[in-house]
Parts: sequence; C-alpha cells; structure tokens
Amino acid sequence: MNDMGFPIPSKKERITDPTVGRLVAYRRLLMRLVDDGVPVVSSKEIGEMLRLKSSQVRKDLSYLGEFGKRGVGYDVSRLLEDLAGILAPFEVWRIGLVGIGRLGEALLNHRSFLSENYEVTAVFDSNPDKVGRSYAGKLCYHIDDLPRVIAEKDISVLILTVPQQAAQAVLDAAAGTGKIEGALNFSAAVLQAPPGVQVKDVDIFIELEKLLFKLKASEQKKKQSF
Amino acid sequence: MNDMGFPIPSKKERITDPTVGRLVAYRRLLMRLVDDGVPVVSSKEIGEMLRLKSSQVRKDLSYLGEFGKRGVGYDVSRLLEDLAGILAPFEVWRIGLVGIGRLGEALLNHRSFLSENYEVTAVFDSNPDKVGRSYAGKLCYHIDDLPRVIAEKDISVLILTVPQQAAQAVLDAAAGTGKIEGALNFSAAVLQAPPGVQVKDVDIFIELEKLLFKLKASEQKKKQSF
Repeated sequence: MNDMGFPIPSKKERITDPTVGRLVAYRRLLMRLVDDGVPVVSSKEIGEMLRLKSSQVRKDLSYLGEFGKRGVGYDVSRLLEDLAGILAPFEVWRIGLVGIGRLGEALLNHRSFLSENYEVTAVFDSNPDKVGRSYAGKLCYHIDDLPRVIAEKDISVLILTVPQQAAQAVLDAAAGTGKIEGALNFSAAVLQAPPGVQVKDVDIFIELEKLLFKLKASEQKKKQSF
Repeated sequence: MNDMGFPIPSKKERITDPTVGRLVAYRRLLMRLVDDGVPVVSSKEIGEMLRLKSSQVRKDLSYLGEFGKRGVGYDVSRLLEDLAGILAPFEVWRIGLVGIGRLGEALLNHRSFLSENYEVTAVFDSNPDKVGRSYAGKLCYHIDDLPRVIAEKDISVLILTVPQQAAQAVLDAAAGTGKIEGALNFSAAVLQAPPGVQVKDVDIFIELEKLLFKLKASEQKKKQSF
C-alpha cells in the first residue's frame, strides 16, 4: 500500500487547508525550479515568488523536517521530493467526475488537471446523447450506472459538477456503495455528507464575493481617511 | 455613492475570508427561506442546514448586531436585509472577464453568476474569431482594447480565465489604466499584484489536493488505530 506517498508526520495530520494549499504551491514552484536547473533556493526567494512572508515559508518547511542552510538555502531536489512524498497518496486516487456541462468539460480539459496523485477513471452524465461518448479520453457512463461503475473501477473520490438540485441524490447513490471517501462539490448545493464521506465545497462565486467584500472594505477605509 | 450597501461595521472591516464566505452562505439560505415563506429561523436550524455549529452562527450574526430571540430565533426578512446590506457594494461592481475558453464560458453561463452586486460589463479574448461575438449576452472585445474598454466602461474588477503565461501581462495592461481595484485569478500563474490592486487566486486544483490530503490523513489515522 505504501509505495507512493510518505506517511504524514504525526503532528501534521491535522494540518489546515491553507497550509496544504501552500505546500501544493511550493511543490509547483519547486518543479519549475528543477526544470530550470536551479539547485538551491532560499525562503526569501520562495516567499517573493509566491507572495508569502519568508518566515511563513520557513515555518511550513520546518514542519516537514526541512531546514535550509543559513546563507545558502534549501536543496531544491530534496525539498521537492519531501513535499511530493507528503502530498502523494498511499495509492493513486481514482476519481469519478459527474456532470459533463461546461464546467465539467473545462476541468477535464485543463492542463493542470494532470497529476501523479490522481486520475479521472470515469465520467457520468444523465444526458443519453453524452453517454458512450468520450470526454478528454474518458468514457461517459449514464448516471444510473454510478454505483456499478464505482464498484467495478474502485473509484473513491467524486467531483460533482452537476446542477444544484441533483447533487445530493448523486452523492447519496454513490456513497451507498461504501466506496466513496470524499467529494469535491462544485454545485451551489449545501450537501449533507453521508457517514464516512468528506465533502469539500468549491464555490467560485463565493470566492468572487470574498474579493468584492475586501474591495468594499478598502474603499470604505479610503473614504474615512479623508 | 451610498445607495446600495450599508457601511461595514468598523470592527468587521478586517473580517476574514472564511467569515465572508459564511455570510454569503447565510444570505443564500435566507433568500431561500424568504421564498419558502419561512418567517423565523434559529441558529440551530441555520447551522444544521449549512453544516455549521450553532455557536458559530450566533457569533457571526451577533457581529452584525443581530441577536435572535431566545426560544424564537431570528426574523428572516430583517436578517436577510442586514446581511445583504453588509455584502452589497457602494456601487454595482463592473467586471471584465478576460479569456473565453471553456472555463470562462462556464462562469458566464452559470446561473449563480447573477447578482445585484456586480455585472459582467465586457468580455475579452485574443482570438479574432471570438472578437465581436456575444457570450452570455456580453460583447467580446480584443484583448488589445482592454485598457480603452476598461476606461470607457468604468470596469474596476477583472476575472482572469486566461492561460497561465498570459495572466501577468493582462493584469499589468489593465492595471495601467489606474481603474482596476481587484482581480480574481483562475489561472495557475502566481501574479505580482500591481500597486492598489488586490489579487485573489482561485485554484480549483489546489482545492482538490486539499481534499485528497485530508483523505490521506484519515486513511493513515484509520491504519494506526488497528
């Protein structure tokens, strides 16, 4: 089972989402540095490239047991190996994407959607015109076959790009197989997570509202300072 | 200037992103409750519907000056009005969406992408076949016309759905107008924010990695408990 990823250091098992987000960003940056033939990088340089404080970078990396050499920096290849190992799963995640609308297709065809850590194993839709066709090289099954295909193909993660009103029924049908460990929900539905299933919502419109709220606060501050 | 939104209470000007996210979720839920003719709701009911602790709900709403009546709950219409006012901008945000690929189209056509708080005023692409066409009712301009159209149409927010390698140049060209206050970046590019511009990254693949890391931690914990 343990061919791919390293175990997570015990004090990092409850690592927060923002930290994981930064680790992923470090990994992406280090891959670029390896490609560019850069052997060593400092926390200051990492921070500048990723808009982070160097103290934050040092803290994150020291958790992984990585300490840069003062005045020299981190060994790029070793740091990448450590980061990749922590982030890698014990086995490649097998993902089912449900809902081949514009967003589903956008995700499937995005070039960042390629990883050694996971693979989209099957896609699903309720539209008979889409069933049997191939999307980004993945065969589309009818949504009614979700439980069967999940079991056959050992799928443990779902990406839900279905309409809001369909999301809960899809999740429940999939979870009924006992195979599903997590779901990434792109619909605006607020889902009840079935037992044993972790649900993470990605609401791109809430991200927009967060930005707009910040801008409103800035505007207000500016007005007050006159 | 102050026709739409209420000022943000001074202690909430530095409100964190997760809190804003919850306020948006409360607003969305309350709109549904108003539609359903529900007059009163308790923090416990809100919490159950949104997978939040009722103590968290009470804390968030008390910041807004809203206190439910013990044993009764919150007046749904009044709470919605307060929330909507806090979240509403001083003027409707005018947004330019740059990059009409699958993701750009998915956003434009998404039914959640309708709000009284903002409007997409123009869309942009570098592909001459797309320029002059209409996308979700918005005329597509050539990317070279970005500065001119931003100035003419008083656009202050950008949504960047361009390829990674194009994102910084687009942002810089737009910021050069002095009109842009914020940008929502969907590309994987790590952008240098021009002075006075707030950049927010939405990396849907990092969200997937966050979920997968949590699942790995759960699996590891389960193994250790045997």
